[in-house]
Amino acid sequence: MNETLGECWQQRFGTPPPADLEQLAPFARHRSIRSYLDRPIPESWIRALVGVAQSAATSSNLQLWSVISVQNSETRDELASLASNYEHIRTAAWFFAFVADHYRLKSAAASVGEPAEGLDYAEFYAMAVVDVALATERFVCAAESLGLGICYIGAMRNKAPEVKRILDLPEGCFCPFGMCLGWPDETAEAHIKPRLSQDAVWFQERYNREPPIAEYNERMKAFYESENMKGDVNWSMRSGRRVDNDHLTGREILKEWLEGQGFSRR
Amino acid sequence: MNETLGECWQQRFGTPPPADLEQLAPFARHRSIRSYLDRPIPESWIRALVGVAQSAATSSNLQLWSVISVQNSETRDELASLASNYEHIRTAAWFFAFVADHYRLKSAAASVGEPAEGLDYAEFYAMAVVDVALATERFVCAAESLGLGICYIGAMRNKAPEVKRILDLPEGCFCPFGMCLGWPDETAEAHIKPRLSQDAVWFQERYNREPPIAEYNERMKAFYESENMKGDVNWSMRSGRRVDNDHLTGREILKEWLEGQGFSRR
Repeated sequence: MNETLGECWQQRFGTPPPADLEQLAPFARHRSIRSYLDRPIPESWIRALVGVAQSAATSSNLQLWSVISVQNSETRDELASLASNYEHIRTAAWFFAFVADHYRLKSAAASVGEPAEGLDYAEFYAMAVVDVALATERFVCAAESLGLGICYIGAMRNKAPEVKRILDLPEGCFCPFGMCLGWPDETAEAHIKPRLSQDAVWFQERYNREPPIAEYNERMKAFYESENMKGDVNWSMRSGRRVDNDHLTGREILKEWLEGQGFSRR
Repeated sequence: MNETLGECWQQRFGTPPPADLEQLAPFARHRSIRSYLDRPIPESWIRALVGVAQSAATSSNLQLWSVISVQNSETRDELASLASNYEHIRTAAWFFAFVADHYRLKSAAASVGEPAEGLDYAEFYAMAVVDVALATERFVCAAESLGLGICYIGAMRNKAPEVKRILDLPEGCFCPFGMCLGWPDETAEAHIKPRLSQDAVWFQERYNREPPIAEYNERMKAFYESENMKGDVNWSMRSGRRVDNDHLTGREILKEWLEGQGFSRR
């Protein structure tokens, strides 16, 4: 968890880093942490991290997001049981449900006689999802700079209606992801995962429809093997299967459910 | 641009910081920078920052995002003219279009005989928008740690079909925002903008339908006045108007356009 920039780049891309910017290493070290020490994080730190999250950019200062901390162990257990039963949801020092939130603004607008009808548009669904993601990732970068570890929980989308019930979300609210936060147990392995080469992600002037991914498929095949995953699978194969029709895990209802919540109706 | 954590909190929330965590100050200082020095940023730095962005979490390692740098001045001008004519799109050292990207994965999957039909679901639209936002905000936090300044350009959504044409985006690609990057001109004012109090954004255990916002309305009224904006308007009034039906600026077509691009069809 204290890799140099060079070590990060080697593990992430199999190349040396492009610039002598060692101060970027903390941002390059990210990996999901699923094993935590039994060590608390003071509420004052969470308050500071939420303030950092609020410092992220937000479109037109609308602040279309909220965060709910869930510390009650029964609620944690209930959330874990519907989110792939991840044990780290139960064991993390803090668990958060991040929320794309139209409700607060709609209420505030109604109180001054503004019906806020535009929020029905797909535009404002995109805006809320972007707002909550920017805020959360700033929280994450700051938390990691303090030595904390996190794991995003996309499985909160597995049963959106249940998450709504448990967290008492009103219309206009959607939890796109949760987040575990804790002190990393450094005795548990947590690798820096290889990523596509930069030429496959960063394009100049126009989109590139034939990005170089063969090299990445080879690197990932070796990575999967090193993790003892079933052999002879590369990234294209594995990722292609992930996005077939058989791995929606309850999320196939999302379009209809979101429209019911007031998102993207038109 | 070198405020202490205490100064950041005072300007952001009107309170002292909740914890003695001075090392978080760089994350709390964010403000949009629209005036830049005429000073280049080496391409090797951009390469490092893109690598940092790639180090962000990405759901199931699908990496559903790309970034296109636009340095050609005619293209910059064309993009500026359709994105609210912001001058900083023309003058920033670098300009980026960030892209929610299903195309790369769909192509890769097709090459191994996987049709990737699940990508049509709203689930994978959310996933791509979250992926690109997390990656971008990690880029931003790292860039700011180097002393650089940024400004997100949500106005890239004003004319999605034009942005698609200019950047040659294939089906499966959507640019939710652009980003200007440069060395801040510190002679130009760029205030830390006040945000909602933390009790209005961070809830415990369950959603709070009556968050305290009266205090924020007062703070924002004073802020608007200090910025010489038309008087006697508070945050609820100003934000409520922003989300009426008259301020969509071309974005009312987004739902239909996104479905045409293959996003959120079911």
